[in-house]
Amino acid sequence: MTISRREFARLSALGLAAHTVPLPALAQTGQRKIGYCIIGLGRIADHHMRGIAQGSTSTITGLVSGHRDKAEKLAAQYGVPKTSIYSYDQLERIRDNKAIDAVIVCLPNSMHAEYTIRSAKAGKHVLCEKPMSVSVTEAEDMIAVCKAANVKLMIAYRLHYEPITLKTIALIRSGALGKIQAFDSANGFNIAPGEWRSTRALGGGGPMMDVGIYSLNAARAITGEEPVAYTAVATTPDKDDGRFQGVEENLAWTMRFPSGAVASCVTTYGAQMPGYYKVFGSKGWLEVAPFHYEGQRLRASYRSSPGTPVVNVDETNPAHDPSHFIAQADHFSHCILENRTPDTPGEEGLRDMQCIQSIYRAAGISMA
Amino acid sequence: MTISRREFARLSALGLAAHTVPLPALAQTGQRKIGYCIIGLGRIADHHMRGIAQGSTSTITGLVSGHRDKAEKLAAQYGVPKTSIYSYDQLERIRDNKAIDAVIVCLPNSMHAEYTIRSAKAGKHVLCEKPMSVSVTEAEDMIAVCKAANVKLMIAYRLHYEPITLKTIALIRSGALGKIQAFDSANGFNIAPGEWRSTRALGGGGPMMDVGIYSLNAARAITGEEPVAYTAVATTPDKDDGRFQGVEENLAWTMRFPSGAVASCVTTYGAQMPGYYKVFGSKGWLEVAPFHYEGQRLRASYRSSPGTPVVNVDETNPAHDPSHFIAQADHFSHCILENRTPDTPGEEGLRDMQCIQSIYRAAGISMA
Repeated sequence: MTISRREFARLSALGLAAHTVPLPALAQTGQRKIGYCIIGLGRIADHHMRGIAQGSTSTITGLVSGHRDKAEKLAAQYGVPKTSIYSYDQLERIRDNKAIDAVIVCLPNSMHAEYTIRSAKAGKHVLCEKPMSVSVTEAEDMIAVCKAANVKLMIAYRLHYEPITLKTIALIRSGALGKIQAFDSANGFNIAPGEWRSTRALGGGGPMMDVGIYSLNAARAITGEEPVAYTAVATTPDKDDGRFQGVEENLAWTMRFPSGAVASCVTTYGAQMPGYYKVFGSKGWLEVAPFHYEGQRLRASYRSSPGTPVVNVDETNPAHDPSHFIAQADHFSHCILENRTPDTPGEEGLRDMQCIQSIYRAAGISMA
Repeated sequence: MTISRREFARLSALGLAAHTVPLPALAQTGQRKIGYCIIGLGRIADHHMRGIAQGSTSTITGLVSGHRDKAEKLAAQYGVPKTSIYSYDQLERIRDNKAIDAVIVCLPNSMHAEYTIRSAKAGKHVLCEKPMSVSVTEAEDMIAVCKAANVKLMIAYRLHYEPITLKTIALIRSGALGKIQAFDSANGFNIAPGEWRSTRALGGGGPMMDVGIYSLNAARAITGEEPVAYTAVATTPDKDDGRFQGVEENLAWTMRFPSGAVASCVTTYGAQMPGYYKVFGSKGWLEVAPFHYEGQRLRASYRSSPGTPVVNVDETNPAHDPSHFIAQADHFSHCILENRTPDTPGEEGLRDMQCIQSIYRAAGISMA
C-alpha cells in the first residue's frame, strides 16, 4: 500500500479517525447498504459479521455453510432470511438474490480461489480473506476472473483499515523517521492439534502463509517498496507430534528493498509469539504491536535533527474488536457504491503471494 | 555460554546478585587485587576503568596510550604511577612491571590480535574487547599464543556478567518457556562521520562485527547451541556519504540451530536501533533490552501448562554503569587468582568470529 498525497492530507486532517468516519455525503443521503453473503462460518467470519452488523454502509444478507443448524442460528441473530442460507454446492444461486451485492470468503486458504471465482461468475463482488490463495497462479486467475466478470475484488488486509496502522504509515511517509534502513517483525503462535491451517491441503503452507504474511505485508506497506531479494530458513522440530502435515513449523527470513532497506522476520506455529513490527530510520524508530484484532499501539521516538527535542509518540487504538472489521467492510461498500478501487485490491494480495513464493523458494520449500 | 548445574544453583540462590557479590572467602582474606594495564584509552576503556576502580579484586596499575597528556591525567585520577604509563611501542616493558598482572585491550578491532599476542608474550593475562579479532585465523592465533605463554585469555562479553542476562539464561534453561523455537534481535545505531569502526582497516567489518555481535552472542547463549546454517543480506544505501569505508551499513541475517530453533537478526550503522532480543518458546516468550551499559530489563510471560496461571516477569537491573564492568573485571581477577577458566574465554570469542565469517559469506562479503 502506498498513501497518496491526497490520502495523507486526509489522514492528517482526520487524525486517527480516518477510516472510521463515514463519508459525509453518504451519511446525509442515507444511501442503501451493501449486502454481504458470508461464505464459511468459522472464527474469522465471526469477526467479519460483527463488523458488518455495525457498519454504516454494510449489512449481512446471506450465509453459505456446510452446517445448516449453525447457519440458521446466525441467520436469526443477524436478521438473514432462511431463504438466503445456502450450502456450498448451492453457491451459484446467490446470483438470483438481489439482496446480495458481495461475498466474503472466510474459508480455509486452499478454497479461496474456487469460491472467489464462483462468486465472481455469479456476479457478486468479492472480499476475500488473506492469504488470497495458495499459489501465484491462483491469485492471477482470481484477478482475471473478477475483472472479466466486472466485479470488484478486495483482500481482507484488515490492518490497512486500522487507524494506528494508517497513522504509522503516514508518520513514515512524512519523513519523521528519516531514511528507513531496517524493519524487524515477528508473528506466530503455538498451534493446537487438528487445525486445518497446519495442513498443506487446506493451509497451502504453514505459519508463513497464515501469520507471517502480516510481517511481510507490513514491511511492504511501511517501506512503500517491493522486496527484490530474499533469504530464508525453515524448520519443523516437532515434525513427529502430528500437528504439521507438510508445512513448516518455524521460518525466519530476510528481505532487501530497492532503497537498500533490509528486513528480518520470523514466524512460527510452535511458540508463543505475539506479533509486532519495528522500523528503524536515520532519525528514529517506531514499534507497532500487536497484529491482533484490537489494542494496536504505536510507540515512536525520533527527532528531526541533532539538537532538536526528541519526539515521543505512544498511542493506542482505543476501539475494540470488531472496529477495523467495520471500517474494512464499509470501505469495500463505498468502493462498490462509488465504483472505486479498494485500497487493498486483488493485486495487493497477488504481490504478497509472489513474495511468499520467493520466501518459500529461498527456504527450499515448493509452493502449490 | 552454557550454565552448569552448579552455576544455576548458585544463581538461584543468589538471585539477581549472582556475579556482583564478592566470593566470601576472598572478602574475608583480603586477598590481593589483580593489577590491570589498560591498552587504549578511548570510550570503552573509560567503562572498564570505572569498573575496575570499584572492583573488590581489581585495580588499575598501568596505562598504554599514544597520548601522554591524556594518560597522565587518567593516571593521576586512578592512582597509577607515571612510571607505569607506556607508549604503544614500549608495550613489552610491562613484562618488568610486577604490579601489572593483566591487560585490557581496548583498541580498535584490527589491533586486538597484535596487542593480545604482544601482551601474552610479555607474560600478562589478557582481557580483550569484543569482537576478539577481525578474522578467524587471528582468533585462533590469539588462543594458541596465550596457551603457549600460560596466560589466561578472556573476551569482554560484559553481558555475561550482567545479572538480568544471567537470570534470563537461567530462566530459559529451567524450561519455563518450554521448547525454544525462535529468537529475534536487533542492535545498531546511526554512526557519526569519522569513526574508526566504520572503516574496514580498523573495524574489520561494519555493524555486524561491532554491534550485531551482541545479537549473535545472545542467540548462542540463549539457545545454548551453535548455529549450523546462515542466510544474510547486506546493503550500504549511504555508500556515497563518506561514512562507510569498505564496510556494510545494514545487515539482516537468519540462523538455524541443531534443535530446529531459528533466529532472525538485523544490525545497522545507518539508523537508530536500540538493541533488544526476544525469545519464543512453546510455553511463553521473553524480551530483554537494552544491550547498553545499564538498565537491562527482562519481561517474560509463560505458563507451565494450559490451565495454569500465566507467570509474568518484569525485572530491571537497578545497578548503574559500570556495574557489570565491575563484575566482569572481578570475574577475570578471580579466574587469575584461582587458576580458573573464565566464563567467556578466547574460545567463546572464536565461535563468534566463526559465525560472523559465515554470516558475511552468506551476505557475499569476504572477511579479512
